[in-house]
Amino acid sequence: MTEYVPLAAQVHRELLGRGATLAVAESLTGGLLAAQLVDVPGASATFRGSVTAYATELKAELLGVDEGLLAVHGPVHPLVARQMAEGVRRLLGATYGLSTTGVAGPEPQDGSPVGTVHLGFAGPEGTLAGSPRLSGDRATIRRRAAQGALELFLAHTAAARKAAGAG
Amino acid sequence: MTEYVPLAAQVHRELLGRGATLAVAESLTGGLLAAQLVDVPGASATFRGSVTAYATELKAELLGVDEGLLAVHGPVHPLVARQMAEGVRRLLGATYGLSTTGVAGPEPQDGSPVGTVHLGFAGPEGTLAGSPRLSGDRATIRRRAAQGALELFLAHTAAARKAAGAG
Repeated sequence: MTEYVPLAAQVHRELLGRGATLAVAESLTGGLLAAQLVDVPGASATFRGSVTAYATELKAELLGVDEGLLAVHGPVHPLVARQMAEGVRRLLGATYGLSTTGVAGPEPQDGSPVGTVHLGFAGPEGTLAGSPRLSGDRATIRRRAAQGALELFLAHTAAARKAAGAG
Repeated sequence: MTEYVPLAAQVHRELLGRGATLAVAESLTGGLLAAQLVDVPGASATFRGSVTAYATELKAELLGVDEGLLAVHGPVHPLVARQMAEGVRRLLGATYGLSTTGVAGPEPQDGSPVGTVHLGFAGPEGTLAGSPRLSGDRATIRRRAAQGALELFLAHTAAARKAAGAG
């Protein structure tokens, strides 16, 4: 029997084991990712906090996303996700940063169809993005995007642990 | 028959009518308040974004809450709620700011019992705090605190409208 552990609790465990902390920057998920992380008992040991940069210009002003990038590609782009993750990691003084940007619908946005989602990960070793294509209604896409960000964190940190020979 | 309109949608309407915007700073609700505001279709017209300052020092570093106040009273205090609301309003360039701080449990914190909650409101006309005493488990207290913040906004803006003779 494998014990069922919610994704957010798995992230909390992984961070505890590393003596590390996490901060998140949200756009389409707007608070859902933070709410899942705060739900874990003892969250304050590993969760620093979050920024919901719902207005596009806040992605630049607060999180330091390149304005030229936003002007050319709009907020729904893998590089924006990476810069949001790196920006919130720096702004909140955390070891790792996670981010979400995308189109929850019901309407397409900036030429991207509903369900386009980019997730960002940032850590001491650099940044990367994951770009799942999600389906469902607005609420479902937002919930799956938050879940995807937690999965991205776990996949990357597990891979790093294996590469280091500790897993 | 009175039409049922969720609190967050009522807040959105009130803001639209004023040509105003809102930003929120969350502690114990950690994303729940932002998530409710983003849930409203067309939210981007009135909702700027949010900061979850879960780590106490972020309340000072990011939101400008007075460090002496935090040192003397801890993060669960009406003045902290007011300064969080004013700080996020300024940081995110919004007309109004709303905030939550308190003890969701299961353990008391800094001498405050579970269910102690302070909600902050900030606008062009100044700041105020509401301090409901909430009961229930951790999830219930967090949900009621988010609801309380929306009610505080509506109560205050409706009162201001009546005082101005427009309601």
